Amino acid sequence: MFIKEKIDGIKFYKFQPVQILALGFAAVILIGSILLSLPIASRDGNPTDYIDALFTATSAVCVTGLVTVDTGTHYSLFGQIVIMLLIQIGGIGFMTFATLIALILGKKISLRERLIMQEAYNTFNIQGVVKLALYVIGITFSIELLGAVALSTQFIPKYGLLKGLYFGLFHAVSAFCNAGFDLIGNFQSLTPYVENTVVNLTVCALIIFGGIGFAVLTEVINYRKTKKLSLHAKVVLSATAFLIIIGMILFLVLEYNNPKTLGQLSMKGKLLASLFASVTPRTAGFNTISTSDMTTAGKFLTIILMFIGASPGSTGGGIKTSTAFLLFMTVVAVVQGKEDTEIYEKRINKSYVYRALGITMISFIIVIAVTMVLSIVQNGEFIEFLYEATSAFATVGLTLGLTTRLTLIGKIIIIITMYIGRVGPLTITMAIAHKQHTTTNLIKYPEDKILIG
Amino acid sequence: MFIKEKIDGIKFYKFQPVQILALGFAAVILIGSILLSLPIASRDGNPTDYIDALFTATSAVCVTGLVTVDTGTHYSLFGQIVIMLLIQIGGIGFMTFATLIALILGKKISLRERLIMQEAYNTFNIQGVVKLALYVIGITFSIELLGAVALSTQFIPKYGLLKGLYFGLFHAVSAFCNAGFDLIGNFQSLTPYVENTVVNLTVCALIIFGGIGFAVLTEVINYRKTKKLSLHAKVVLSATAFLIIIGMILFLVLEYNNPKTLGQLSMKGKLLASLFASVTPRTAGFNTISTSDMTTAGKFLTIILMFIGASPGSTGGGIKTSTAFLLFMTVVAVVQGKEDTEIYEKRINKSYVYRALGITMISFIIVIAVTMVLSIVQNGEFIEFLYEATSAFATVGLTLGLTTRLTLIGKIIIIITMYIGRVGPLTITMAIAHKQHTTTNLIKYPEDKILIG
Ligand SMILES: [K+]
Ligand SMILES: [K+]
Repeated sequence: MFIKEKIDGIKFYKFQPVQILALGFAAVILIGSILLSLPIASRDGNPTDYIDALFTATSAVCVTGLVTVDTGTHYSLFGQIVIMLLIQIGGIGFMTFATLIALILGKKISLRERLIMQEAYNTFNIQGVVKLALYVIGITFSIELLGAVALSTQFIPKYGLLKGLYFGLFHAVSAFCNAGFDLIGNFQSLTPYVENTVVNLTVCALIIFGGIGFAVLTEVINYRKTKKLSLHAKVVLSATAFLIIIGMILFLVLEYNNPKTLGQLSMKGKLLASLFASVTPRTAGFNTISTSDMTTAGKFLTIILMFIGASPGSTGGGIKTSTAFLLFMTVVAVVQGKEDTEIYEKRINKSYVYRALGITMISFIIVIAVTMVLSIVQNGEFIEFLYEATSAFATVGLTLGLTTRLTLIGKIIIIITMYIGRVGPLTITMAIAHKQHTTTNLIKYPEDKILIG
Repeated sequence: MFIKEKIDGIKFYKFQPVQILALGFAAVILIGSILLSLPIASRDGNPTDYIDALFTATSAVCVTGLVTVDTGTHYSLFGQIVIMLLIQIGGIGFMTFATLIALILGKKISLRERLIMQEAYNTFNIQGVVKLALYVIGITFSIELLGAVALSTQFIPKYGLLKGLYFGLFHAVSAFCNAGFDLIGNFQSLTPYVENTVVNLTVCALIIFGGIGFAVLTEVINYRKTKKLSLHAKVVLSATAFLIIIGMILFLVLEYNNPKTLGQLSMKGKLLASLFASVTPRTAGFNTISTSDMTTAGKFLTIILMFIGASPGSTGGGIKTSTAFLLFMTVVAVVQGKEDTEIYEKRINKSYVYRALGITMISFIIVIAVTMVLSIVQNGEFIEFLYEATSAFATVGLTLGLTTRLTLIGKIIIIITMYIGRVGPLTITMAIAHKQHTTTNLIKYPEDKILIG
């Protein structure tokens, strides 16, 4: 008995927490892909091509939203519910589920499990993690329920009571988890609702709440009691607000006269659609105006916003708002001739700046590599490849139309990119944090200088 | 008399050295544009449109090489010689000319003038600057002369003795100064010489020598005596070699079967053309294969190489090889969990990393902004705009064909971009260096942390 436990212990310790996460994601994707490839999962009762089932499962678990087959018309109710569950598992993070199950079974949560949780949510102190896990589930279900009710008021008149409620729930889950899956059919996404105030504002709110990260969400909810915000929360909230407002203004200006996007809409519609276009790259992936009909400048702006993405510890992807904010403030410090990055009257240690640089550069290199490979194996325009690569890596789910034209190799590349985009940044962050705790520079080399610029 | 001197002194001190450089460039551009707009400068004896003359003069002084009218067929011998002089002035830097004139007139070089020189060449110690200025001119003329002789052996058989020698000289100057202007005619650049070993290797050598920076060039030339290289020289030489080799291999692979680029060439031609395609974005701007017929991946690779560009204190542009190398090694350090960036067993202070980040981010933002503006004011594909913006900013001179299609607004945007691309990075670097010497962080804020990735 003792020996067995010891062996288990050794086996267990062979995996880093982040590897457990990565393997867990892979396992959920695998199970999901098998379920989705069953005849029962498709509307016409024929088994779905495994590659498409795998693509859908990966896209759902990684809350990306890119689809090779249309969710609403291809999959049966069974298939759609599988997708919704995959989104929920992927979005909240399966570690919350593990904690939930542990709580249900009445087992005490070990320090190790807490540590895994901590790294999963990228938060700082251990004691808050269990509390956070409960918050996550409570908050997620509460917000999704509120969203579902709001959306149902718009869907019920069109689809009837049951289907209307179901559509409300599905899209609320998809929006809060920043998944971007929809049931509207024929790859329309939310374009039929471009002028609908309730749908627009509800979905935008769900995306934003899901995208600022559970830690910040908790801080915001507790703000009435605590009356203070951490630096991180301030950074995330201000960066998010800044990106939404600037993005909205730019989309409004760039697309104002484009007859295929904002041109034909009412003023209210123009404002709602610009807001939505600015919010959805953080990294929801719904769209209310045709992405492929946007101006080149509008498409490029979308690519940039997608690359920045959402906030750490959230359902969204990208390099993260706080990373972009930190790099930007470092450039400001450099231009001002300051020695250290300063944000809201706090100095930021260089190790954070270096990590932000690392995450950004690695992400950039991956997007460049995927774009290049896509341009070799697929026909199409450069901006389609760059858009698709960024969308897949940042788990956004917007496309200029390339997804449905993907060849087998193209599909495999995007599947891998979605997985790396979801698991990778966390893996890198954890690997770095782990090494920085265990490694000290054994050899301290003398300083020297090189020329720049 | 005393008062007059004092007033002059005050006036003089009102300008930062870098502002003097910027104004000097502007003055040379202005004079050049007037000369080029004269009837005598054009082949048909009609005055050239001022906007095109201004475009050519800016492109020449900023050693960019983008042209709205073909240099060989549009301009007269007079016009071409003006262009060659503008290239030479822009390439070596007019500060060397100022020093030269000062030496000829027998005036002692003041500390202030030496400081200006120092900042112009971005080197470290003051005493070496005068020596360097002499070196620059000596080395430049020597290398250009050698190059001109080598190229003439190929041009004389085709164009006769005089024209052959003239062509040899013009293209040697244009190559060493990384200007990319050519006289071959009809925007052909060096495509007729794609299989010519002498032309290819001579031009590549001139581009590389011109692009590694005078400081490194001096170190390399003195290596036999000194037997040591500075860290900066090691970084520049290894980064340059790495980029050339990787670029060559990638171009060979990407374009191997493209019938419009490498496909129809002999094996020797394929190798020469891949080498040339890899060297020219550093930031010469000649081309031996059609840039617009490259694969999308080949075009994208060119954009990346152009953005990185040449080395500091050289005739080339871009964010610089050493900047890219430093950022890359910082990412390596981060992934390895090291506290500091280490290059060739030396630690690099964070201030250099921050500056590299600053230069890169600002350059990136400018390229993005120019791309976006071009996509609004011009018709065409996204990759054409990104390519053109990068080419203009990094003073490369390659184009996918947009330059000749530029509207008046488009021309003005590219003129401004070329000027900013040449003067800007130096200005930023100097401004930063200046501030870092004069400013200390007056308020030292407490440290705090934020989440990343
Ligand atoms: K998404
Ligand atoms: K050039």
